Amino acid sequence: MDQLVINTIRALAIDMTNEAKSGHPGMPLGSAPIGYKIFKEMKINPKKPDWFNRDRFVLASGHASTLLYSLLHLSGYNICLTDLKNFRQLDSITPGHPEYLHTAGVDATSGPLGQGIAMAVGMALAETVLASKYNKEDYNIIDHYTYVLCGDGDMQEGVTFEASSLAGLWKLGKLIVFYDSNDVTLDGPLNDTSSDNIKNRYESMGWQYLYVADGNDLIALDKALKMAQLEDEKPTLIEVKTIIGYGSQKQGTSATHGAPLGQEDGTYAKEFYGCSLTEFDISNEIYDTFTYQQIKQGEKQYKEWLKQLKKYQEAYPQQANELQELINDDYRINYGDYKLKKTNESQATRNSSNDVINYLATKHPTFMGGSADLSSSTMTKIKDSSLFSATNRLGRNINYGIREFAMAVINNGVILHGGIKIFGGTFFVFSDYLKPALKMAALMKIPTINVFSHDSIAVGEDGPTHQPIEHLAMLRSMPNLNVIRPCDANETFGAWQIAMESKQTPSALILSRQNLMVEANSDYNKVKYGAYVIKEEREKVDCLLIATGSEVNLAIAAATELEKDGYDIRVVSMPCRSLFEQQSKKYQNQVIPTKCKQRLVIEMATSYGWHKYALKDNQILGIDTYGLSAKGSQVMDYYGFNVDNVVKLVKTIVK
Amino acid sequence: MDQLVINTIRALAIDMTNEAKSGHPGMPLGSAPIGYKIFKEMKINPKKPDWFNRDRFVLASGHASTLLYSLLHLSGYNICLTDLKNFRQLDSITPGHPEYLHTAGVDATSGPLGQGIAMAVGMALAETVLASKYNKEDYNIIDHYTYVLCGDGDMQEGVTFEASSLAGLWKLGKLIVFYDSNDVTLDGPLNDTSSDNIKNRYESMGWQYLYVADGNDLIALDKALKMAQLEDEKPTLIEVKTIIGYGSQKQGTSATHGAPLGQEDGTYAKEFYGCSLTEFDISNEIYDTFTYQQIKQGEKQYKEWLKQLKKYQEAYPQQANELQELINDDYRINYGDYKLKKTNESQATRNSSNDVINYLATKHPTFMGGSADLSSSTMTKIKDSSLFSATNRLGRNINYGIREFAMAVINNGVILHGGIKIFGGTFFVFSDYLKPALKMAALMKIPTINVFSHDSIAVGEDGPTHQPIEHLAMLRSMPNLNVIRPCDANETFGAWQIAMESKQTPSALILSRQNLMVEANSDYNKVKYGAYVIKEEREKVDCLLIATGSEVNLAIAAATELEKDGYDIRVVSMPCRSLFEQQSKKYQNQVIPTKCKQRLVIEMATSYGWHKYALKDNQILGIDTYGLSAKGSQVMDYYGFNVDNVVKLVKTIVK
Repeated sequence: MDQLVINTIRALAIDMTNEAKSGHPGMPLGSAPIGYKIFKEMKINPKKPDWFNRDRFVLASGHASTLLYSLLHLSGYNICLTDLKNFRQLDSITPGHPEYLHTAGVDATSGPLGQGIAMAVGMALAETVLASKYNKEDYNIIDHYTYVLCGDGDMQEGVTFEASSLAGLWKLGKLIVFYDSNDVTLDGPLNDTSSDNIKNRYESMGWQYLYVADGNDLIALDKALKMAQLEDEKPTLIEVKTIIGYGSQKQGTSATHGAPLGQEDGTYAKEFYGCSLTEFDISNEIYDTFTYQQIKQGEKQYKEWLKQLKKYQEAYPQQANELQELINDDYRINYGDYKLKKTNESQATRNSSNDVINYLATKHPTFMGGSADLSSSTMTKIKDSSLFSATNRLGRNINYGIREFAMAVINNGVILHGGIKIFGGTFFVFSDYLKPALKMAALMKIPTINVFSHDSIAVGEDGPTHQPIEHLAMLRSMPNLNVIRPCDANETFGAWQIAMESKQTPSALILSRQNLMVEANSDYNKVKYGAYVIKEEREKVDCLLIATGSEVNLAIAAATELEKDGYDIRVVSMPCRSLFEQQSKKYQNQVIPTKCKQRLVIEMATSYGWHKYALKDNQILGIDTYGLSAKGSQVMDYYGFNVDNVVKLVKTIVK
Repeated sequence: MDQLVINTIRALAIDMTNEAKSGHPGMPLGSAPIGYKIFKEMKINPKKPDWFNRDRFVLASGHASTLLYSLLHLSGYNICLTDLKNFRQLDSITPGHPEYLHTAGVDATSGPLGQGIAMAVGMALAETVLASKYNKEDYNIIDHYTYVLCGDGDMQEGVTFEASSLAGLWKLGKLIVFYDSNDVTLDGPLNDTSSDNIKNRYESMGWQYLYVADGNDLIALDKALKMAQLEDEKPTLIEVKTIIGYGSQKQGTSATHGAPLGQEDGTYAKEFYGCSLTEFDISNEIYDTFTYQQIKQGEKQYKEWLKQLKKYQEAYPQQANELQELINDDYRINYGDYKLKKTNESQATRNSSNDVINYLATKHPTFMGGSADLSSSTMTKIKDSSLFSATNRLGRNINYGIREFAMAVINNGVILHGGIKIFGGTFFVFSDYLKPALKMAALMKIPTINVFSHDSIAVGEDGPTHQPIEHLAMLRSMPNLNVIRPCDANETFGAWQIAMESKQTPSALILSRQNLMVEANSDYNKVKYGAYVIKEEREKVDCLLIATGSEVNLAIAAATELEKDGYDIRVVSMPCRSLFEQQSKKYQNQVIPTKCKQRLVIEMATSYGWHKYALKDNQILGIDTYGLSAKGSQVMDYYGFNVDNVVKLVKTIVK
């Protein structure tokens, strides 16, 4: 039966890619036994794919998606034979790479290499935090493994090593990574691009390393898997030697990696396996035994868990209730007692953000996070808590080290796991380093919270390597990301609320290093509209100023000056463009009337993208070069971000 | 004398940061002896800082800039005491982080961690390529080391490991990295964020690992340096134990990392060193001996090299001449015999790009490059050459492995070194992974060439993880980057010419996976204008279509349809926005007349940023969500990129 299922998975990989005339058969053919072993072992309930205490599985090599889809189908998930036949077709639930929320049983979107292992590190982190917090003696409500199947590509990407290093440090013993080691990448033999000793490399990071010499040796795979499970402290990497495109005439070569085998070679391979030559032919024997067992076993495990949960609910009703709300992501926070800052109080929004972080830590039981070694600069520390570590699972501060990318991907994994609200912080300019993770969060529709401080040239002395210019445009141009740049302490509170309450959209909070004054009409409650009038004109609008973040103070100061000279100015604070653009046309026109043709957009960043609101080239005060190293105030002056210059520009525009 | 110089460097680090009231004294105080040893050892000529055969030095920990500036000053470079006093001030040559081209003797801009080692790998790569190609028996015209000083931060960033892995594979034996190992990062003790065994980790990648137990032990430093130089094959990492903020009352803690010591603690430290308490006090003894020796030694080495070069020029005039042109980056290519494609010929621009790559390989002696394991997809292979490797330095194809970020940073290092034209390729969607390197190239004004294929949703079946949406906006919003998206084979040739001839601006070539037809009026020679009229209207413009890349075919096809219905349409091909915006207002208005109010911008990517050319929201046909997995043609239809829809949109706009 083992062999029958494995060969069927291989035959399906051949048929699906042949039918789609595209796809990647090489890895599924080689690693089918590994996938089979994992799925047979996993604690999952195919009929309840989002069971919270299931084992997690990340197919880091997302291109091997046929393997995952076949396993899901054969395990009894809601993915039928027709879905397999529709592989890579419009509106199918079997897209080219696995997509979270799109297909039941897919725990993470994958494809961009390296991120799979790092997401799994996040899942294992979430498991250990929740287990430590909610399990009681005799009640292991949270208790599962996180499995990964990765390939040679993942073993080269830097983020894999950033995250693996943390997994070793944190002793995430329930993380089990199978490394499909087939010595071939797209461009040819692996030794063209790597001479790494993977065993030594992983052991140097505190992992258990196991080796399976033959990927078809089910007994050896089983043994390694059991050894991995037995190891409590060290995460485990199991290197499994396989043959890419196993069974194909071109086996062992990169020719099998990214193109279907075609009919002839496909038949050749099927004959080699000794399985049916008919396309998409799945023996009823498999459904009757393997599929049946998978479903039965899953139901049994699930029911046992439910039984235990019920007792837990009786013994610990408060904790059980809290945990359930966290699992459902509907844990309610009452923000009513938050102390807003008073008008004219001055505070850097990174510090305002820290106030909110510490407030939220008192309100939400699993709110946690940290930074990529910049906690004292990004102000991301929870004061009343300790550092998360191998021996302190309840520490709510996470030091990710100088590993921005891993931080963001790990946090994606934590959110994918569920039960925890997590944030990560770094300097805004280093959003560059983690952009690939932000993109995945936006694509997966998971509400990660990203705190970016030091948000402009006002950083000053650290100079152009540390001054963001194009970064606001980089993030705003991404679909499904709320880029929120609050103008003061109170808008910062509003920004955090949006980030906390968001269900399907990640947030980027863009915060100042320098002090900003609380404006009289700034309104935390209007941040959710994306933009609002923060300073009304007296009668008619001579010029409409649109500003974000730290430039709102400047805009209002300039407006006040201009009023003295008889100009009538409206100032719009626009903390979040995407939210503003989701408002009704009516609201948008109330805030920024189309008939107001005299405008000035003020933002200490690239002008790129602002022509949507500016009607002429001269209606943007931005920065289209890189910055420079000097005192922040001097740099701002240099680029014209002062009252005198704004006044001058407005007068030119109005004239 | 050794100790006097070292303590002076320390005192200067204290004084410079105190004077600036900002900066990072911690690392300079700890690693002053290492910096001193390197500079004393290096083959450099302070009076000829761009001497091509000098040893290169990358201060990977750019925040330790006072160390570098002091060493440059004391070595006799063109950086005077006043420059040191002006540290981090407006218009100074001593900005917060070292900046290439800004300060003589600075071989690379640094600050963003991890990139320093990777740039150095590129420099060492360039050295070995040029040495293999141009050195002759008895003529080691190219023969130098590349030194790096890095810190704990670099040891955590993924890109360090991507690049280090390649350095080991490639046996870059002349790369010598000093690792200032002080066990402290900004957020606290290193063991909060790492339990890596650095020795095993580096040895697993094929490096020589050496250890110096006491960073103040000059003899041990010297011994390690010599051992590193003696090792021909393996790159060397020398881990040197130091104390951050050495001498300060707060030594050994992160408190000394990123803030000046202040007067009191500064005095305390100076007393500890036993050096002058006067600020910026540099003993004449240093100038008279150390500085004098550095200059003399440099001049001597330089003159010896010139002498050798002269003989080389006599013995090998052609090679010498070629090398000189390469060094000056003025090697001339005569493009006259390039065979343009004929109208209506069809070719994917990634394949057109491969034609140009292979053409350039016959024209330019050190043109080389490769991809991050996608050469057969990005079409970046030089057919008549072999793979660069430890045993084949003259191979012009580089397989960087699945390491996009390292690829781009290494290439930055190659260009910083000089003498080589290099390109790197990956899928456009993975430009995310290497964006931090592109930013550094743009900032450093170095003309790297980045080839991005599979440039839109037309990728099809691979789905949203592989379909760029926001990436054009991400790159276009960067200052000093030419983002060129050619519409056919001939524009691709023009795009490559711009990339090859660029002196201070990196290029991103955005190429299609699918076939594109050569348009009758497409003009390789007009790509340099950024945009031009590719299809003239008959009399008056009813609607002006602006398209880039693969959408130009569509725009012209739609225009032809619309003409049948009596509409008069102009089509503008806009391969490069930034170049267009550098043209005269007159030219810009000739191509896109301001009086043409009816427009449609067509691009299979985010609409973000296109309001600069579209005058209303409905004048952009873009994609503001993520893509989907299906046949490319179906995905394009789904998002409305077909003739019928463009015709319909234009009619609505004109009406």
